Amino acid sequence: MDRKEKLRVIVEGSVFTGIIQFLILVSAIVFLIESDREQLEVDPYKTHFVVLDVIFLVLFSIEYVLRVYIEPRKRDFVLSFYGIVDLLAILPSLVLVPGFRVLRVLRFLRVFRLFKATRFILAVDRMTAALRQIYQEIVALVILSLMLVYLSACGIHFFERKVQPEKFGSILDSMWWAVVTLTTVGYGDAFPVTAGGKVFTAFVTLIGVGLIAIPSGLLASVLTEARVENEQIEKDEEEDGK
Amino acid sequence: MDRKEKLRVIVEGSVFTGIIQFLILVSAIVFLIESDREQLEVDPYKTHFVVLDVIFLVLFSIEYVLRVYIEPRKRDFVLSFYGIVDLLAILPSLVLVPGFRVLRVLRFLRVFRLFKATRFILAVDRMTAALRQIYQEIVALVILSLMLVYLSACGIHFFERKVQPEKFGSILDSMWWAVVTLTTVGYGDAFPVTAGGKVFTAFVTLIGVGLIAIPSGLLASVLTEARVENEQIEKDEEEDGK
Amino acid sequence: MDRKEKLRVIVEGSVFTGIIQFLILVSAIVFLIESDREQLEVDPYKTHFVVLDVIFLVLFSIEYVLRVYIEPRKRDFVLSFYGIVDLLAILPSLVLVPGFRVLRVLRFLRVFRLFKATRFILAVDRMTAALRQIYQEIVALVILSLMLVYLSACGIHFFERKVQPEKFGSILDSMWWAVVTLTTVGYGDAFPVTAGGKVFTAFVTLIGVGLIAIPSGLLASVLTEARVENEQIEKDEEEDGK
Amino acid sequence: MDRKEKLRVIVEGSVFTGIIQFLILVSAIVFLIESDREQLEVDPYKTHFVVLDVIFLVLFSIEYVLRVYIEPRKRDFVLSFYGIVDLLAILPSLVLVPGFRVLRVLRFLRVFRLFKATRFILAVDRMTAALRQIYQEIVALVILSLMLVYLSACGIHFFERKVQPEKFGSILDSMWWAVVTLTTVGYGDAFPVTAGGKVFTAFVTLIGVGLIAIPSGLLASVLTEARVENEQIEKDEEEDGK
Repeated sequence: MDRKEKLRVIVEGSVFTGIIQFLILVSAIVFLIESDREQLEVDPYKTHFVVLDVIFLVLFSIEYVLRVYIEPRKRDFVLSFYGIVDLLAILPSLVLVPGFRVLRVLRFLRVFRLFKATRFILAVDRMTAALRQIYQEIVALVILSLMLVYLSACGIHFFERKVQPEKFGSILDSMWWAVVTLTTVGYGDAFPVTAGGKVFTAFVTLIGVGLIAIPSGLLASVLTEARVENEQIEKDEEEDGK
Repeated sequence: MDRKEKLRVIVEGSVFTGIIQFLILVSAIVFLIESDREQLEVDPYKTHFVVLDVIFLVLFSIEYVLRVYIEPRKRDFVLSFYGIVDLLAILPSLVLVPGFRVLRVLRFLRVFRLFKATRFILAVDRMTAALRQIYQEIVALVILSLMLVYLSACGIHFFERKVQPEKFGSILDSMWWAVVTLTTVGYGDAFPVTAGGKVFTAFVTLIGVGLIAIPSGLLASVLTEARVENEQIEKDEEEDGK
Repeated sequence: MDRKEKLRVIVEGSVFTGIIQFLILVSAIVFLIESDREQLEVDPYKTHFVVLDVIFLVLFSIEYVLRVYIEPRKRDFVLSFYGIVDLLAILPSLVLVPGFRVLRVLRFLRVFRLFKATRFILAVDRMTAALRQIYQEIVALVILSLMLVYLSACGIHFFERKVQPEKFGSILDSMWWAVVTLTTVGYGDAFPVTAGGKVFTAFVTLIGVGLIAIPSGLLASVLTEARVENEQIEKDEEEDGK
Repeated sequence: MDRKEKLRVIVEGSVFTGIIQFLILVSAIVFLIESDREQLEVDPYKTHFVVLDVIFLVLFSIEYVLRVYIEPRKRDFVLSFYGIVDLLAILPSLVLVPGFRVLRVLRFLRVFRLFKATRFILAVDRMTAALRQIYQEIVALVILSLMLVYLSACGIHFFERKVQPEKFGSILDSMWWAVVTLTTVGYGDAFPVTAGGKVFTAFVTLIGVGLIAIPSGLLASVLTEARVENEQIEKDEEEDGK
């Protein structure tokens, strides 16, 4: 076993994996605390956060280099989902390095570090497989949902634009109401007050709420189907083995 | 292959289809921007919108004529769902043509252009087939939901009419509350304040929320069933082929 | 065929059934309009409503007598769900008959007339059969939901009782919050403001919202299973028939 | 049959079980009433509650001792879920016994008595078995949900922190909004007002609401699958028996 192979075993081993998971979690918590302290005018611990960020930069960079190194098809990895995520996990910290202070906005990209963690969650593969199976339905439902949001916004704009022009004055404004209502969030910042608007809302919600709930039901069903099929296959194999 | 056949190949081809989809999308966006600018007292771009609308009218009219022309059973097409939708997609623009300025309301019908797009969404057929399969259950659930809305409104009217006459003074007013509550939107513009009304609401929501959520679960299940059956049929056919 | 049999054919026929359905619908609408007009101090049409109610009383009474008459097992029918509902549909109107003016409250019982209509909805039988199949799970989920409501109320009472005594001062008051939150209605009349209360709410909703959504998913699944099994049986019978 | 065996028959019999269930229910109601009366400055019935609590302490203690006594593997029972719950059901009452008055907080632990009741609910075993089956999916969905809450909070913090610093000033504060929105509770105490924040919310809710609804759909499906398999096994056994 050559050096590369040894490294691969280490990188894919539970110790290294555990350290990376821990780092991602700590990084997320640090980001959270940092955002909390930004409200203070003077933060005596400001340098601590800078130091921590340099540490994260170094450690995630080492991880990235290692992952590229052990990969036989380097190019495929760099362009893969996790390759890009791993790169995005380093980039935002570069903002702190003098000379790279481009934009404060970039620092927000650090939240993408969290996506590195999905690699370690079991059953995510199974779920993406299930999603791929119902790809067409999901696309159709997303388009239909967007159409429903648009049509609901048009409708409520028609009924409410004169009474509440600040909230339903344009279709764009009404779309905010449509999303908040059809997802059943219902903040209460915008709601119809005219009789026509209320009847229209009743009609649209009773239909629309169902439409938007279908995808998750579909995914749940397909995941269960996949599980049953797997069990069937395992059972058949056992019987064949006898 | 005669001229009609050639036209049919073009109309059902990906280039023509793509153009129509693009036109529908642009039309929707233009309608959205137009509604946004109506809030302005003077819009210097008003003529632009009129010109755009004439263009849409001409293009969708050509599409409609083409679709009728290539269809062997013209009458069936004209009276079919998409035949009517395609016609409704032209009608509202006629309002702009001098002499046809009937009502501003008619222009809102332009939103129905969006329905032209469902023709191009894959999996919509599969979903309508699934819906047809559970037709009786859906009808039953819709009737039961409406009954629940009515009964909830009666109940809350009974408990709250004296304390909040402006919101629960009649069953019709209370029905607005019932729809907003049972779909779990819960704007917060109307809610019970009496002890009786609260207990009644607790009772009704814990039951009703479930009732209204059943149809989407049902559709999700049936869609998955249909998928499993299709796979089974494909598998059987493969095995028969061997 | 004797007279009773002839009557049975008429009562169960589509004409009689249609008339009853129409009467139920009209009765519901009249009740709705009546509640709307009660807000007026003087209603010139008041006598009209009294006359209408007498008509409903007579017609539904005739229907009830007919149904009892044609039934071979009279006692079973009178004590059955629809037997009781049919009786309750007449009773409230008796309030209008002089001498029977017991309580205005009784008139609200007229809403139960609506339950007469479930008899005519197809697929209701299938749904009650499905419900019976998952009876134990439903009971368990109802008990667990009630327990969750109680425990959430206790928890939020613990965190918020000092800051918002008027809303979370007792567990009973807190239960209103718990129901409104766990059903995801979220009116916004009561919500936690303390850090502890917010963390507790986050924890409880993320779990609880799922728990309360299970029954409808379960019913949807079982209805689909029943459908698949029926299709299988029909298919098998067809094959046996060959 | 020795004394232990006789006792076991009694403890697991319907009379003893019924009494315990009744005691749990009464205990919950007493706790509820007590919390209601704490709002009063002087409660003339205060001693009654103390007496009731001593009675509960004695009765649940007897039950606990009996359960340990009849159990052959005492240690396993004491450390099992119900063993711990039964112990926690006694501990809080000890607070009332002089000398044990540690903390008022401890008394809130009395709500855990309710968990004793899950032992008696049929179908809870079936549900925990179903949960165990989809353990990996549930863990994955919980982690993804938490990630979604975190990322949504970061996003809304980015858009709204300047306009509404008191509500979205830090990621922690924004997480409250994220939980309330993604569970579709939507109290309306915090919602985006900037265009960017609204678009972000629309995007996040349309995806996130589905994600958080998957677990209950999954559990519903698996429960139904388990039911179908059980029926199949029973059917097969019947056929084998023939």
